[in-house]
Amino acid sequence: MTQVKGIGRHFLGLKGVSSTELTEILDRAAFWDQYPEKVADVLKGKFVVNMFFENSTRTRFSFEIAERRLGAEAVNFTAAESSVAKGESIYDTVRTLESMGIDAGVIRLKPVGVLQELAGKIRVPLINAGDGNNEHPTQALLDMYTIRKHFGDIRGLTVSIIGDISHSRVARSNLWGLTTMGAKVRFCAPPNLQAPELAEYASYVSMEEALRADVVMMLRVQLERHARGMIESAEQYRRDWGLTVERLEKMPPHAIVMHPGPVNRNVEIDDEIVEHPRSKIFTQMAHGVPVRMAVIERVLS
Amino acid sequence: MTQVKGIGRHFLGLKGVSSTELTEILDRAAFWDQYPEKVADVLKGKFVVNMFFENSTRTRFSFEIAERRLGAEAVNFTAAESSVAKGESIYDTVRTLESMGIDAGVIRLKPVGVLQELAGKIRVPLINAGDGNNEHPTQALLDMYTIRKHFGDIRGLTVSIIGDISHSRVARSNLWGLTTMGAKVRFCAPPNLQAPELAEYASYVSMEEALRADVVMMLRVQLERHARGMIESAEQYRRDWGLTVERLEKMPPHAIVMHPGPVNRNVEIDDEIVEHPRSKIFTQMAHGVPVRMAVIERVLS
Amino acid sequence: MTQVKGIGRHFLGLKGVSSTELTEILDRAAFWDQYPEKVADVLKGKFVVNMFFENSTRTRFSFEIAERRLGAEAVNFTAAESSVAKGESIYDTVRTLESMGIDAGVIRLKPVGVLQELAGKIRVPLINAGDGNNEHPTQALLDMYTIRKHFGDIRGLTVSIIGDISHSRVARSNLWGLTTMGAKVRFCAPPNLQAPELAEYASYVSMEEALRADVVMMLRVQLERHARGMIESAEQYRRDWGLTVERLEKMPPHAIVMHPGPVNRNVEIDDEIVEHPRSKIFTQMAHGVPVRMAVIERVLS
Repeated sequence: MTQVKGIGRHFLGLKGVSSTELTEILDRAAFWDQYPEKVADVLKGKFVVNMFFENSTRTRFSFEIAERRLGAEAVNFTAAESSVAKGESIYDTVRTLESMGIDAGVIRLKPVGVLQELAGKIRVPLINAGDGNNEHPTQALLDMYTIRKHFGDIRGLTVSIIGDISHSRVARSNLWGLTTMGAKVRFCAPPNLQAPELAEYASYVSMEEALRADVVMMLRVQLERHARGMIESAEQYRRDWGLTVERLEKMPPHAIVMHPGPVNRNVEIDDEIVEHPRSKIFTQMAHGVPVRMAVIERVLS
Repeated sequence: MTQVKGIGRHFLGLKGVSSTELTEILDRAAFWDQYPEKVADVLKGKFVVNMFFENSTRTRFSFEIAERRLGAEAVNFTAAESSVAKGESIYDTVRTLESMGIDAGVIRLKPVGVLQELAGKIRVPLINAGDGNNEHPTQALLDMYTIRKHFGDIRGLTVSIIGDISHSRVARSNLWGLTTMGAKVRFCAPPNLQAPELAEYASYVSMEEALRADVVMMLRVQLERHARGMIESAEQYRRDWGLTVERLEKMPPHAIVMHPGPVNRNVEIDDEIVEHPRSKIFTQMAHGVPVRMAVIERVLS
Repeated sequence: MTQVKGIGRHFLGLKGVSSTELTEILDRAAFWDQYPEKVADVLKGKFVVNMFFENSTRTRFSFEIAERRLGAEAVNFTAAESSVAKGESIYDTVRTLESMGIDAGVIRLKPVGVLQELAGKIRVPLINAGDGNNEHPTQALLDMYTIRKHFGDIRGLTVSIIGDISHSRVARSNLWGLTTMGAKVRFCAPPNLQAPELAEYASYVSMEEALRADVVMMLRVQLERHARGMIESAEQYRRDWGLTVERLEKMPPHAIVMHPGPVNRNVEIDDEIVEHPRSKIFTQMAHGVPVRMAVIERVLS
């Protein structure tokens, strides 16, 4: 394991992580997915702290369940963004928690670049639970796990990621992970929500072409961007970029639908599709726990 | 156990629950009330999530103690009402938590009817910790447990419930439970805070008559209703509908005072009465833990 | 152990606590500081509730780690100040939690005097985690532990406490504890942030004289006092009362720097000093856990 590649002491992202390492994690997730007991003993006596400098009850919850299923002591530290605004202050908080004797930290934060800085200064392993629009590696791993479990193999599949690519850490982590595992990733996004710097890694395609894929992964619309004029209206977004029932029917019969949640029903995805037989949305959420167990266990062993 | 009656997979309310079932729960609560060890092992390895879509630190706390005393893994999920406003979104959240592998959910929420809907779609057992003005069954059970422990039997007692009946889930759950157990329930409420649809189950009586009872159960005044003109003022409310020291003296010598808490001292109940020998208020709170242990254990077995 | 002196059933402050008792606690903290296992079994099955009526994620976190390392069930109860505004309401809340069967309570609250009142009415032991500007005894103990560990003995040392003495519970608890242990405490504060009632216990000295000490303990500036005109500006405060790099160089070579955290970098203390070899700031935080373990264990045995 090489530290510069993201895996090593910390677990910061999927960019540069080898397919061998990704496969090891997915295999271990499969082990936990089938584990007969709810709570194992492997991290008994270890303290894992969930440090959320950006609100996310769902991801925090998924990590907490994973930690407790491993037998660890899960402790939550939630800071309103307002009170810990500057990067410097995030550092002081993390150093403080570290000094109290924790064994690992799960961290979510908004400012891009701060996590990399922290990683150089903090000795206990940190797991990225989402940093700005940079990476959200455990989300991508649970997506990859879901795809592998469904199709048997990731290699050779075509995955279309549709929506606000520009602000999406989910899109980036999936791009790095899926590409390494041999899938072909394509983006589909409104022109003002594309990420030009990613164009060399994935091509932007039309909605029509995006639907011709093995996996159609919808991204959550940040409706607050509407206020800033970046999207017109929920209705207009649905019409132009949403996965409507009509569009679902244009997908190949074997293709599946994914979404990291929480969904805006009838905006980026139609209400009827969320629990459609071809939707993997709640399955993805279920896979979050074993995947995070595998990652937490890895950084702590 | 018949599912339609509220007990079965879920535990949604006391309406329609048989006296046999109520007695079983109260008996099991008595067992836990006397249990010599703080923490038992009966739910070891089970995850119970407390989902509070409406704030209530006290009830949440009581459930958490109950879960941990049973040896379960208690996990908290608190959502500001603002962020989970619509019923649909509550459903998505509960489905998400369910998909993560929890074994049971304790849920409090505001919109009436949503819990019934959820119950039809969610597989893990749900326990109602208060839904709108509909039911708050564990509160009524702890009230009934307190009454039974004090008087030996509920049958034949007269219970007066005084205050804002219209908005009270506590009043409703107590009405159903106490009536089934053979008590006579009477209401006493300001005309604009009565619930006409309950008039066929309990008669509305004057304050003077209400005081002639074995149990006088005061309801909390929602002072925020004052702003909406539904109550005049705290002083006026106390004068007309509060349990003052003078009124306490008019109660039969054997009668007890109850209140679900938290109290507004000197509004619905005089300061001197809260910890009066005839008040069972903190005793009720103490009983919340064993009663909830009995309910949680029941839905999980 | 005499109850009036603060130790006994409750642990409310260091004022009046004997040097024998303080030494016992510091010795026990040293035991836990060296303890090989993360989690001990000494408080298995005990419920300790952290009741924070004033926000403090760090102190709450440190107590929670301490409780869990002792094997206790740690339960958190956080109340926005707004919802529990009056002292009476704090009492009702604490009584409610007590009635639910907890074994000890850690409490932080703002109004001065309320904790003393509570202590007379609540049966389970209470540990003061900071009450108004009165005392913060576990903070002072961890400071004393840090000093003793560094110098071998507290007796004979000179400790300068610099900053807003008037509003500081940390200054008061350190004054009582350090003086009892034989140190000489001196204050240095802007004239409008001095506490005249403490002048008989510690003399106020100039910044220049304050720097001639074995320990220089900086207090956190409450920047919100700026708005109230009590401090001029962050820059002015740093110039007049901050521990700048220039001032650090005027300290004796063996002297150490302390701060209870969180720091305002470049206000009361220069950025470069926070992790300077002579700074004990993160060491202090590390010591919070074993010190609190010693205190919690003591009130529960």
